[in-house]
Amino acid sequence: MKNQISILGAGLIGSLLGIYLKKKGLDTSIYEKRPDWRQNQTSSAGRSINMALSYRGWKALEKAGIKDKVVPFTIPMYGRRIHDEHGSTYCQPYGKDNEAIYSISRNTLNGILLDEAEKAGVTMFFEHTVEDVDVHRNKVTFSLPNEQEKHLEDSIIIGADGAFSALRNAMQRQTRFNFSQQFISHGYKELTIPATTEGEFAMDPNALHIWPRGNFMLIALPNIDKSFTCTLFLPFEDANVSFDKIRDHLDVIHVFQTYFNDAYQLMPDLTAEFARNPTASLVNTECYPWTANNCMLIGDAAHAMVPFYGQGMNCGFEDCYVLDGLIGKYGTFSWELVFEKFQKTRKPDTDAICQLAMDNFKEMSDSVADPKFLIRKKIEAKLHEMFPHEWVPQYSMVTFSDIKYSEAYAQGKLQAAVLDKVMKDPFIAQKWKDLDYHAILNKVETSKAV
Amino acid sequence: MKNQISILGAGLIGSLLGIYLKKKGLDTSIYEKRPDWRQNQTSSAGRSINMALSYRGWKALEKAGIKDKVVPFTIPMYGRRIHDEHGSTYCQPYGKDNEAIYSISRNTLNGILLDEAEKAGVTMFFEHTVEDVDVHRNKVTFSLPNEQEKHLEDSIIIGADGAFSALRNAMQRQTRFNFSQQFISHGYKELTIPATTEGEFAMDPNALHIWPRGNFMLIALPNIDKSFTCTLFLPFEDANVSFDKIRDHLDVIHVFQTYFNDAYQLMPDLTAEFARNPTASLVNTECYPWTANNCMLIGDAAHAMVPFYGQGMNCGFEDCYVLDGLIGKYGTFSWELVFEKFQKTRKPDTDAICQLAMDNFKEMSDSVADPKFLIRKKIEAKLHEMFPHEWVPQYSMVTFSDIKYSEAYAQGKLQAAVLDKVMKDPFIAQKWKDLDYHAILNKVETSKAV
Repeated sequence: MKNQISILGAGLIGSLLGIYLKKKGLDTSIYEKRPDWRQNQTSSAGRSINMALSYRGWKALEKAGIKDKVVPFTIPMYGRRIHDEHGSTYCQPYGKDNEAIYSISRNTLNGILLDEAEKAGVTMFFEHTVEDVDVHRNKVTFSLPNEQEKHLEDSIIIGADGAFSALRNAMQRQTRFNFSQQFISHGYKELTIPATTEGEFAMDPNALHIWPRGNFMLIALPNIDKSFTCTLFLPFEDANVSFDKIRDHLDVIHVFQTYFNDAYQLMPDLTAEFARNPTASLVNTECYPWTANNCMLIGDAAHAMVPFYGQGMNCGFEDCYVLDGLIGKYGTFSWELVFEKFQKTRKPDTDAICQLAMDNFKEMSDSVADPKFLIRKKIEAKLHEMFPHEWVPQYSMVTFSDIKYSEAYAQGKLQAAVLDKVMKDPFIAQKWKDLDYHAILNKVETSKAV
Repeated sequence: MKNQISILGAGLIGSLLGIYLKKKGLDTSIYEKRPDWRQNQTSSAGRSINMALSYRGWKALEKAGIKDKVVPFTIPMYGRRIHDEHGSTYCQPYGKDNEAIYSISRNTLNGILLDEAEKAGVTMFFEHTVEDVDVHRNKVTFSLPNEQEKHLEDSIIIGADGAFSALRNAMQRQTRFNFSQQFISHGYKELTIPATTEGEFAMDPNALHIWPRGNFMLIALPNIDKSFTCTLFLPFEDANVSFDKIRDHLDVIHVFQTYFNDAYQLMPDLTAEFARNPTASLVNTECYPWTANNCMLIGDAAHAMVPFYGQGMNCGFEDCYVLDGLIGKYGTFSWELVFEKFQKTRKPDTDAICQLAMDNFKEMSDSVADPKFLIRKKIEAKLHEMFPHEWVPQYSMVTFSDIKYSEAYAQGKLQAAVLDKVMKDPFIAQKWKDLDYHAILNKVETSKAV
């Protein structure tokens, strides 16, 4: 019986998992490729989308006992604030009442998690690059600075090493490992809207700002230093507005003045940032099985998704929560059993959220700007208000509940089919305007029946 | 301008490609991991499904000038001979008149191609294992026996190195390389029906024999030594008849007596062969792009398919034919241009045949045993006879023509939709029996119209 656990990767998922496992009394180590970046907060700047914590993430942090440490570093966003081409804005609430998603910087959150993991007694090894994993013998070879090598043997190995996981790469070379990596046509670049000269937020801080422009968009999330982290999503090529067509400062300014002029006015450092920050790609990866001979994948290593549903981290945290529950239930007598239960339970849910994330790009970048879509959202919110348990919008199931992702996916499909029919009513906008809920409800009922 | 070509892999595709390129006057080398197996014909025994050459394959061999070398080693198969549980058999012709697919042993064909490549002046390097490819610098590192290393630089690199391509693996580590490998639930094992004691074929040699049993099947292809190479396709697990349930000789005998008794009577060495031969897995791989910086993938390295349409090799040979045509058209001034044209032209076709191969398992293992399916096939053959150009069965488009696979796929879908409707006619079997072609044609016409 092996109870020495080695986690590969000290990112968000690896460090939260370390806390969980150490609290179960297990001998837990984390091996990380990078140096300890807590001493140098800028190391990953310009390389990650801001995080939005939602219900599943909070629930997992709470069970690990560290929710309170995180809360002070978050800013609630109660809805999307949509910016049109003329600088007008309006807000679409995400949920009801005080339901919100919470903006936090990846570095800040990762730092808290690492500190807490160390406090809990997890042993940390930085600058350990996985060179090879022998899955059949449960053996990991690391390269260290100064060309040293180190071998790890006879340990339970959990790969929390992200979308380009070294453990998964080793598993892929085995027989019958299903794997897919699909890059989407869009890339992203991080930019900044700094605090005003008075030291205040330059825009409403309690919203996720979106500049939807059809096939591309800009978004902005608030930071506690009163700046906003912006992310520009553009196609790499083959479009009127694409990264490959932006060749110099003038092109940058032209695109921003044309499509994002209100944001542009708030971005004094735009052209320098644009040149300095990398253009990163976006990948969806799916694989199966997640486990082989006392090795297992978790988080992005098992299922990296595109960021358009804001669930990558929340899903990874929920992975830790679910795994912790299974260890509680089955004990650590057989890791093979626990890992098998984990993958069987979890795979349909991660498949569902990967698909939802892919589908949601269109909603964020295009539909949110469509007046009919807004009415649809309002009708749905009204239905939710009238039937709080019978009709929950898919976004709310995913974001403000812990309903299984696969159920949220299936239920959302059914509801979407009903709403598709409702929205075909040529008088629907008028009915909504007239507050004629009775007629709308009738329409919903008949649409269900068919 | 680089005109030194290095092909990775001396399999069927690599060696045919070598002949094509050498004939274009290019300095061509082939690097192969295995030792030269022409001296030891048994090296890959029990590890490959017999090959069935069809139109596309012959066309490519003919253009390379080596068709005549291959013909004597093939046996035409004019149709499927279906074996039911009681040992009764009947034949389904593959096409019209003399249309056939041609059985040949992989080793024999590969040997001919290697000999011809050497004769043409291709330089062969055996026992060269690719350790690493630096795609950005066009650099390959090989390991040789005795722990030697060898480096190749500044060459055009073409990966014909199969479903688990080392070049593709290197490309996968770049950004934005889409890749998927999916193993199917079934595996296979090769077995033999030897020649009779009188030195004759034990069954009809001019057919591909199938024992379709729903979720599993046995097939047999003739060899020129009058034996048959049989392939047993079973699920690995989770089924009544599966590889994991066959644990000893008695289980083997039980399965064969129950489901394949007529074949069993012809297999004196069955249990020993079953134990000796490996159980191999079946994978579908798709990826894109196929090219990066003067490197390119071809054949299984670009698109490995499951074997159920008999097109893996034919498609790979057609790849060589198409590439040769593009080199003829664009010259070798810019390999990037040629490779770009190749992948753009060819990818929709290989996607189509990969999908068709996946779908065809059901037809081979299940539908062919269904009386309604047989009538459907006969109606389709009749339509083809009456309208030889307007109605070509999908199998014929794929197997007996060089219509683009993607067109065969699309046209096949349309025809299948028509036939689905025709077959819903409750009197269709009677109409066919009554030779009432007029009524059937009417039905086809009205089914098209809807």
